[in-house]
Amino acid sequence: MASSTAGQVITCKAAVAYEANQPLVIEDVQVAPPQAGEVRIKVLSTALCHTDYYTWSGKDPEGLFPCILGHEAAGIVESVGEGVTDVQPGDHVIPCYQAECKECKFCKSGKTNLCGKVRAATGVGVMMSDRKSRFSVNGKPIYHFMGTSTFSQYTVVHDVSVAKINPQAPLDKVCLLGCGVSTGLGAVWNTAKVEEGSIVAIFGLGTVGLAVAEGAKTAGASRIIGIDIDTNKFDVAKKFGVTEFVNPKDHDKPIQQVIVDLTDGGVDYSFECIGNVSIMRAALECCHKGWGTSVIVGVAASGQEISTRPFQLVTGRVWKGTAFGGFKSRSQVPWLVEKYMNKEIKVDEYITHNMNLTDINKAFDLLHDGGCLRCVLAMEH
Amino acid sequence: MASSTAGQVITCKAAVAYEANQPLVIEDVQVAPPQAGEVRIKVLSTALCHTDYYTWSGKDPEGLFPCILGHEAAGIVESVGEGVTDVQPGDHVIPCYQAECKECKFCKSGKTNLCGKVRAATGVGVMMSDRKSRFSVNGKPIYHFMGTSTFSQYTVVHDVSVAKINPQAPLDKVCLLGCGVSTGLGAVWNTAKVEEGSIVAIFGLGTVGLAVAEGAKTAGASRIIGIDIDTNKFDVAKKFGVTEFVNPKDHDKPIQQVIVDLTDGGVDYSFECIGNVSIMRAALECCHKGWGTSVIVGVAASGQEISTRPFQLVTGRVWKGTAFGGFKSRSQVPWLVEKYMNKEIKVDEYITHNMNLTDINKAFDLLHDGGCLRCVLAMEH
Repeated sequence: MASSTAGQVITCKAAVAYEANQPLVIEDVQVAPPQAGEVRIKVLSTALCHTDYYTWSGKDPEGLFPCILGHEAAGIVESVGEGVTDVQPGDHVIPCYQAECKECKFCKSGKTNLCGKVRAATGVGVMMSDRKSRFSVNGKPIYHFMGTSTFSQYTVVHDVSVAKINPQAPLDKVCLLGCGVSTGLGAVWNTAKVEEGSIVAIFGLGTVGLAVAEGAKTAGASRIIGIDIDTNKFDVAKKFGVTEFVNPKDHDKPIQQVIVDLTDGGVDYSFECIGNVSIMRAALECCHKGWGTSVIVGVAASGQEISTRPFQLVTGRVWKGTAFGGFKSRSQVPWLVEKYMNKEIKVDEYITHNMNLTDINKAFDLLHDGGCLRCVLAMEH
Repeated sequence: MASSTAGQVITCKAAVAYEANQPLVIEDVQVAPPQAGEVRIKVLSTALCHTDYYTWSGKDPEGLFPCILGHEAAGIVESVGEGVTDVQPGDHVIPCYQAECKECKFCKSGKTNLCGKVRAATGVGVMMSDRKSRFSVNGKPIYHFMGTSTFSQYTVVHDVSVAKINPQAPLDKVCLLGCGVSTGLGAVWNTAKVEEGSIVAIFGLGTVGLAVAEGAKTAGASRIIGIDIDTNKFDVAKKFGVTEFVNPKDHDKPIQQVIVDLTDGGVDYSFECIGNVSIMRAALECCHKGWGTSVIVGVAASGQEISTRPFQLVTGRVWKGTAFGGFKSRSQVPWLVEKYMNKEIKVDEYITHNMNLTDINKAFDLLHDGGCLRCVLAMEH
């Protein structure tokens, strides 16, 4: 399928973050054609995630402005650059902030889903081939973000960052598999490897925390304890598999002690899904002596550090983390989409709001509303 | 074999620590007969370990005085209390500070070597049945230490803390398998599970660090990097398998960066064998992104904490610890003794000094001498 726009600069709408902490501006941006090894995607749906908010807020010291944020999306390939063979125009795809080149030391290790190939470029908002951006407004470059920049009707990504999915899948739903839902499921299945009968604690019941709950439920956990300071979240959390709810505000004791007391010595697995370093410590310390494993899923603000007494580890607890839930993006996102199509995993249930690209600032505000899990934006083509 | 002393109080020599940081006193102590579930052991050889020194120094807030220190020893069962069936008088044994009851939640979990059965008593220097000590001097009780108290010609321990070993094994050698050597080997084999071809870093080249090196060598590690501020240790370390030596004093860069640069991104496994929380951090941070695992083996001073940026874990590093190398004491110490008898593991090579019990204060001083690995004391019966 040849596209009439192939090889041309496309002018389209995008939400540009000109400065930290200032409203995004819906702007006509110019999107250059994909170069060798690149793919230009017509974005159909994008969700908002806390990482977008974090960089937008200015707290991310690596945040570059002006930029186009967004990394949880789905779309259709518009055109491909030289040498791109894995996808072609018309393919339905999910852009992946975690690349998978299948060739680097990381990809070939069999031990991690991290990929080293394009990180040096995506980390500084440019494309690898010429270290430049494909976005501009009136000739002035706009930085990429996380190698995805999905708050634009069209985006250009590296071919190692594109997962080709089942064309039957509803893009306004499966866009969520580009980050939060996959991260939560994978934290349980790949990183912690929760076994049947395990006791699990989940700190933070946002989208990622709920996906952890669902992952734990499918893994056969016997107790899934949700911890959140918003008691209103419990009703929703039950639907995702949470069996018990603890609000730290209801207790005078440190939350780790509350959980240890509740579980005859601690949980088998805990997951921190907030990004708060003191909660990361609590999540480790509520694990059972001898074998409890804690997985850091949340992203802490820059410069913050985790700490604990080494005795916690010497007596058998294990401290781990996960990025994109340990899923290899190009290989496994299509598999997650199939699981969704087969009704083996939830996705629709995380979508509490639908809006249009032009409402993006309102959607950003909603992110901090307890009632919002995911807001999906239609790109208004 | 019935013992003429069975059922009697035995008066024998022991080194009593009356107060922190004061010379031990060689004293006539009274050792009561073993009660139900207890074993009285005639100690033949004991080594000194840094944990003895730590408690003696007064830095251990749980240290109780007066006490009889010592936990790396071997001897012969003198008599047993009611209900003890696993050992009998005349059996050659190694007292184990890490018990193994085979019945508690921990022992039955299949996931840890920690045992919960007698911890509540051994942690406070008494025996479980009556919460009292079996040691006294002129009627005044002397606390037990780590459930072993081997700086005495006779000691009483719980039956779950006694490993029966091959009677052919030289007790003045295999006493070392009661702590340091086993801990180092097990950290590699059980906790880290180092695979063939791995790159390993070892921080601290004392007995435990050298045992880690030997463990890594037998596991087929391709590079074993020893890190120590005493360059003199390298010659000895080579014999245990260390292939490269790094002295942090030779570098301006942080040691973790030095190791990362030396290894194209970091090591597969690192081991902290010192007990220094900043080195624990360095050991974690010198691990390879995506999969590097760091094991804390050293015991830090009370109250000290480890810290790092959570990003270190989110990008795939794993932080663990080990106690007694993950070995189940009663089940596996005899197996380690067999490995020594079959010349599959070194033990003799760690013994740099031999002295008598009466020289124990001199032996303590030696512990901080770079040239001393293990000093074994003969108990002068």
